Amino acid sequence: MVERIKVVLDEREIPRQWYNIVADLPKPMPPPIRPDGSPVRPEDLAPVFPMNIIEQEVSTQRWIDIPEPVLEKLLLWRPTPLYRARALEQALTTPAHIYYKHEGVSPAGSHKPNTAVAQAYYNKVFGIRRLTTETGAGQWGSALAFACRLFGLQCRVYMVRISFDQKPFRKMMMQTWGAECLPSPNPGTKTGRAILEKDPNTPGSLGIAISEAIEDCVTSENTRYSLGSVLNHVCLHQTIIGLEAKKQMEMLGAYPDIVIGCAGGGSNFAGISFPFVCDKIHGRDVRVIAAEPAAAPRMSMAPYVYDSGDVAMMTPLLPMYSLGHTFVPPPIHAGGLRYHGMAPLVSHLRRLDLIEAVALPQLECYEAAVMWARTEGFIPAPETSHAIAAAVREARRAAEEGRERVILLNWSGHGLMDLTGYDAYLSGRLQNYVMTEEDMRRSLEAVAQLPKPPPLG
Amino acid sequence: MVERIKVVLDEREIPRQWYNIVADLPKPMPPPIRPDGSPVRPEDLAPVFPMNIIEQEVSTQRWIDIPEPVLEKLLLWRPTPLYRARALEQALTTPAHIYYKHEGVSPAGSHKPNTAVAQAYYNKVFGIRRLTTETGAGQWGSALAFACRLFGLQCRVYMVRISFDQKPFRKMMMQTWGAECLPSPNPGTKTGRAILEKDPNTPGSLGIAISEAIEDCVTSENTRYSLGSVLNHVCLHQTIIGLEAKKQMEMLGAYPDIVIGCAGGGSNFAGISFPFVCDKIHGRDVRVIAAEPAAAPRMSMAPYVYDSGDVAMMTPLLPMYSLGHTFVPPPIHAGGLRYHGMAPLVSHLRRLDLIEAVALPQLECYEAAVMWARTEGFIPAPETSHAIAAAVREARRAAEEGRERVILLNWSGHGLMDLTGYDAYLSGRLQNYVMTEEDMRRSLEAVAQLPKPPPLG
Repeated sequence: MVERIKVVLDEREIPRQWYNIVADLPKPMPPPIRPDGSPVRPEDLAPVFPMNIIEQEVSTQRWIDIPEPVLEKLLLWRPTPLYRARALEQALTTPAHIYYKHEGVSPAGSHKPNTAVAQAYYNKVFGIRRLTTETGAGQWGSALAFACRLFGLQCRVYMVRISFDQKPFRKMMMQTWGAECLPSPNPGTKTGRAILEKDPNTPGSLGIAISEAIEDCVTSENTRYSLGSVLNHVCLHQTIIGLEAKKQMEMLGAYPDIVIGCAGGGSNFAGISFPFVCDKIHGRDVRVIAAEPAAAPRMSMAPYVYDSGDVAMMTPLLPMYSLGHTFVPPPIHAGGLRYHGMAPLVSHLRRLDLIEAVALPQLECYEAAVMWARTEGFIPAPETSHAIAAAVREARRAAEEGRERVILLNWSGHGLMDLTGYDAYLSGRLQNYVMTEEDMRRSLEAVAQLPKPPPLG
Repeated sequence: MVERIKVVLDEREIPRQWYNIVADLPKPMPPPIRPDGSPVRPEDLAPVFPMNIIEQEVSTQRWIDIPEPVLEKLLLWRPTPLYRARALEQALTTPAHIYYKHEGVSPAGSHKPNTAVAQAYYNKVFGIRRLTTETGAGQWGSALAFACRLFGLQCRVYMVRISFDQKPFRKMMMQTWGAECLPSPNPGTKTGRAILEKDPNTPGSLGIAISEAIEDCVTSENTRYSLGSVLNHVCLHQTIIGLEAKKQMEMLGAYPDIVIGCAGGGSNFAGISFPFVCDKIHGRDVRVIAAEPAAAPRMSMAPYVYDSGDVAMMTPLLPMYSLGHTFVPPPIHAGGLRYHGMAPLVSHLRRLDLIEAVALPQLECYEAAVMWARTEGFIPAPETSHAIAAAVREARRAAEEGRERVILLNWSGHGLMDLTGYDAYLSGRLQNYVMTEEDMRRSLEAVAQLPKPPPLG
């Protein structure tokens, strides 16, 4: 028989609980604060999120049961397969063993539905009838559209106008699942009207879209807002990825020396890594690497501050590595990594030196992605290519050192809806965007006014 | 625990042999013939196909070993999961149990790589360095590009110009896998030049593209041609779908009353159904239904004749149901079903009354596809929507009759590269194309000149 390259868990082996790393933090994370510096209270969040999700957001319980109706929907595509990337290893002539967790098999094509399904469920049982959200390139918007349909919720997605116009296919996915997808800024919101009056041709931004989605939420009946990354409960819902991967590695008698995920808002990185960081906290030797774009090197270069999650400062101030909420990342194709901040939990682990960060330029990521497609077959999303490029670096280092390292990466999604980036790369039209010292100086100036979280106790 | 909705085979349970239905035919199939009426000899095909594939094309052996290097590549995405479509059943309030085999999990997103990988392998071991082929909407071209890359073969795809211009994403997939994708007609071939001289703005056609791919093949060094459907060896390679599905149904203690596949050239239909038709030949009670588009109702309406596989008549004459090789199917979104003929093996089974055919209009298929996406989650390809629409009809009939029927359908591919059809449907811009009596009369006139296969012995 040919060598085993894929491990598939039976659906009876799907994890029944999420892992909450808050319970294992060696030092507590600073709380989110209000503009006056006082800690955010659960009731402050109630107009935006249902109370059952707020409870998860602040929970310190280590294991949280996955409700049966959520499990049932997750089983549509979960457990996802774990692969050994043997063809890539051979192409790299590395002694490293490279494993990947394939999150591209979901209906929306990425890890995003893991939390979308959970959030739609909690809103449904809380009596909410409608969710609003924002989306950039459309990965999150399509995942939430899918999840809302499964639970019979209405869904409205504010999509950054430039993506709305340039990437119509994600919009069509959302509509196929029955969601409304509107270009942002939109004349239907106060925020949108004000911006359109100033500049009718604005391309929009994620910051504007968040503000519109929250405004729509708080001014509508039976409506809440849903966020696809950054927050604790989102990271929590994604831990099913790492929990499955651990079981699958165990079935192979293997344990990773290095765990890698790309990091935009931080949730897919959290998903693959938190169960392994738990082991590390308890003494196991494992390196955990967040792969950031060089165009937005938050944990690689930016300061740890209290910053807002959106441009309009409608969210509380979160303790995180941030380039400043006014920072507009350059137009790299990995739209899901174009974020100014980083999930507070991920940021806290970085501060505690439990994880590392590496910043990768776009061209190196596409080179790795094309090598991946031509060896392993599946075409990765531009976001995923950052995790791949980081793994390639580590595999090459293992080759230089002649060491048989075990690398696990999260293959967060496929790139079938993002082929224009490949086209640009293959025809030599793609460029790197790297944060220069001058860019960094401007960014530091912007964040200098922000409150500083207390030093580690 | 929630109810079991998915059956995943361990990779050790992947079928190790393909099933060749030729060995079980109750009456022999007429052979392909040359224009003079004499049977085609294997050596006639040698300029176009490698001899190991020609041997498979004419083999009468019941079981044919899948070579280990092919198995190894198939294991990238196989065995594919079998699902129970419970949410769809509930939406239809039917007592029928609907199962589907999910072929959309391959890197190219459809069943096509099942044969592309095998064909690339056989060409490789025969010493061929380069393959040519044609593609319409791009499903087959991208599958062959992927497979050629895995075995280190060069690949050139002639893509019908109108699709090349209107659907650039499939082209980008092919290029990401390292293939050349050229618009057809192309000035690089004699055929292409002649056509472009007459009409520089021609949209092209599949018939022209086949002619160009074959011309390129026979005039180039170390090059052969590859076809993605219709021929016996292609149907053979697809039987892994039905063989897996049978094992998976057995694991559930179930056996289908009805097996359904959509039928363009016939290979995905052959793949899901031949192992069950085998049972039927040996006395088992099972209905097998080919879902055709009403725009090209070959087995539903057309005569059984000897016809060419392409417009330029470069292929031998094949015994099949055909609307005539000059018939140009209307522009339905299911590009993979826009073919004038039908695989000889599938046609022969129809003639033997071992299978049924049903012709479905486009709007009914999109209605079923949207219902599918909104219940089962995965967005189907427009081709696949025909199998779904046929299953919905049968499930509704089961509800009317109050009978618990077991339906198995082949979910041949996802629709993420074909979302414009959904957009047209959802915005009310989509129309039906149904073959009228007048259309049929013209078609019958065209095929009236063609040779007739002998009556069933």
